[in-house]
Amino acid sequence: MTVSPVSGAPGSLAAASGEVDAAMERFMDGRTLPLYRMMGYHLGWVDENGEALQARRPVRLRGAMSLLAARALGAGRGPAGSPSGPGKGEAPVALQHAVAVEFIHNYSQMHADVQEGNTERAGRPSVWWTWGPAQAINAGDGMHALARLAVFGLHEHGVAPERVSAALKALDEATLELCEGSYWDTIYQERLSIGVDEYLSMVGAVAGALLGCALRLGGMATGETDHARLESMTTFGVKVGTAIRIAGDHAAFWPAGERDIPVQGRLLAKKKSLPVVHALQDGDLKHKRALGEMYAQRVLDPGDVGKIAAILEDAGSKAYTEAALSKLRDEAESALAAVGLAPERVGDLREAAEFARSA
Amino acid sequence: MTVSPVSGAPGSLAAASGEVDAAMERFMDGRTLPLYRMMGYHLGWVDENGEALQARRPVRLRGAMSLLAARALGAGRGPAGSPSGPGKGEAPVALQHAVAVEFIHNYSQMHADVQEGNTERAGRPSVWWTWGPAQAINAGDGMHALARLAVFGLHEHGVAPERVSAALKALDEATLELCEGSYWDTIYQERLSIGVDEYLSMVGAVAGALLGCALRLGGMATGETDHARLESMTTFGVKVGTAIRIAGDHAAFWPAGERDIPVQGRLLAKKKSLPVVHALQDGDLKHKRALGEMYAQRVLDPGDVGKIAAILEDAGSKAYTEAALSKLRDEAESALAAVGLAPERVGDLREAAEFARSA
Repeated sequence: MTVSPVSGAPGSLAAASGEVDAAMERFMDGRTLPLYRMMGYHLGWVDENGEALQARRPVRLRGAMSLLAARALGAGRGPAGSPSGPGKGEAPVALQHAVAVEFIHNYSQMHADVQEGNTERAGRPSVWWTWGPAQAINAGDGMHALARLAVFGLHEHGVAPERVSAALKALDEATLELCEGSYWDTIYQERLSIGVDEYLSMVGAVAGALLGCALRLGGMATGETDHARLESMTTFGVKVGTAIRIAGDHAAFWPAGERDIPVQGRLLAKKKSLPVVHALQDGDLKHKRALGEMYAQRVLDPGDVGKIAAILEDAGSKAYTEAALSKLRDEAESALAAVGLAPERVGDLREAAEFARSA
Repeated sequence: MTVSPVSGAPGSLAAASGEVDAAMERFMDGRTLPLYRMMGYHLGWVDENGEALQARRPVRLRGAMSLLAARALGAGRGPAGSPSGPGKGEAPVALQHAVAVEFIHNYSQMHADVQEGNTERAGRPSVWWTWGPAQAINAGDGMHALARLAVFGLHEHGVAPERVSAALKALDEATLELCEGSYWDTIYQERLSIGVDEYLSMVGAVAGALLGCALRLGGMATGETDHARLESMTTFGVKVGTAIRIAGDHAAFWPAGERDIPVQGRLLAKKKSLPVVHALQDGDLKHKRALGEMYAQRVLDPGDVGKIAAILEDAGSKAYTEAALSKLRDEAESALAAVGLAPERVGDLREAAEFARSA
């Protein structure tokens, strides 16, 4: 596996990500109102004054995996099987689908930052923290509309209206599912006791639906019409997306290296996470009591995280979370196998999923 | 003109509004997650506990005018020229277009209430004031996605994909324009001096674009392809929508009856309005100074409104605003005439516009 020196992402993922990023920038080109500058800031392209940033671009995971799915199924390969050049028109459908997915993902992040009061995003002040919540809502709403306009652009490439329309519908359904999940995410934050199944279903909507849609759109971009095959691709994405969030839940308590500050911030804001939900449902009375005492505090402080982690380990919730991750990984693998492609065609997708779950 | 005893709206507008409202309810039927209950609350269907409200429904102005435009151009009339029954399938395209426009309008209201900190909407606590800003953002985002899913439903009625897709594109472009306008609306709130032209252009985007789109979609629903005719319908809507907001600016200082509390709230929050913008641009130095002193106060109190109104009258800004309204009305009339229909076919639209500007 080729590792990109920049982001640690596998080479094929990093390359696809770069193509998606460049296509997003081309799509925004010429939009000069300050509304778009806020979007560019969120996307990591410019600083708060609109000056270009030299820092490395974030991995566009959802867009890139959408593109890799299209390539696995056949679109976007150059004459000799080489990856197509950026935006050279070999796979404009796949690229625009990927752009749309990324815009949805980023609009949703901007709104989530307002909703959760996140003052930071990717190591910089978040949009709402910089321009206020009203403008962050605007920038998010605008990007929500842009996502779709990116897909409409396909008409100019001669794509049949029914394909454009089907792609838009898939995108809107995933977006609505994301909103439904976000509703529960907010509700669960205030509720002490929720079930593991409820939690996993919420994560599936909030973190899984859009990646599932990304992979489906990759398939649709190739003209794939086999329903079962598209469903398998979607399930693969949903499982990987769900695992990304659960892996984050795990890493918040038991990080591979330093504890990540934003992740810890989520914990301190008492955001639910799978190990805690599990312990409160299935732990012994003493674990429930100990956790109840911790979470009954008005605020958690960083020192509490270690104490909570110890209770969770004792309650078997660390092991439970690891088993859940393992199951999600198996389910993703089975779904990918069910797509029915030769293993070498889905190698890039498998690598990308591995990276996403561990990043 | 038949006046509905309920809302004061002309009979044809009230009837069309009722049809749109019923179609919106049918579309939401079966969506039982609490996310949709918040939407139903905003739409005036249920109270905060989900119990049906008996109060009269609000006029669905944008959706109803969309429907009236479709009827003017030929769709949705029964065999003997009678209006079609609610949702009987005679004009499903026009009705679904109208539903989509109303969902966009209402999503945008829910977000605007968060952005502007409006604690009330139509005499009841606003969604964010009841469930918090995070859930109001969710409910708005969800309704944004629903708007489009309403249009996708047309596939089932056998509507050609290119027509579905064109309708969606018009909707997304108007939504993006609305977001751009909302950006400036927020910026202008903090800026003392802005030009009359800047202000009118912002109002055109915030209040005009969606009504313009509503009328265009009405035309598109009939299969109308004459570009100039659709443009004229759109301009008619933009001018009426712009006039609605400017009429509100005028009524805030010089109401026909009692001063409206929410409108006054906008003033007290130092929301810009055309008379003030005009006086600050074209008033004498003494008017500018007097207004500057009023607006330099940290907060305005209700008694200040009368003082500001007197300054504005003296500066000629009341007369200017009335002239601007008159011009917008003439422009709307010219645009409607340019559609090229017999006067009796556009009578309902003209009446609806008159009602909207004076309501």
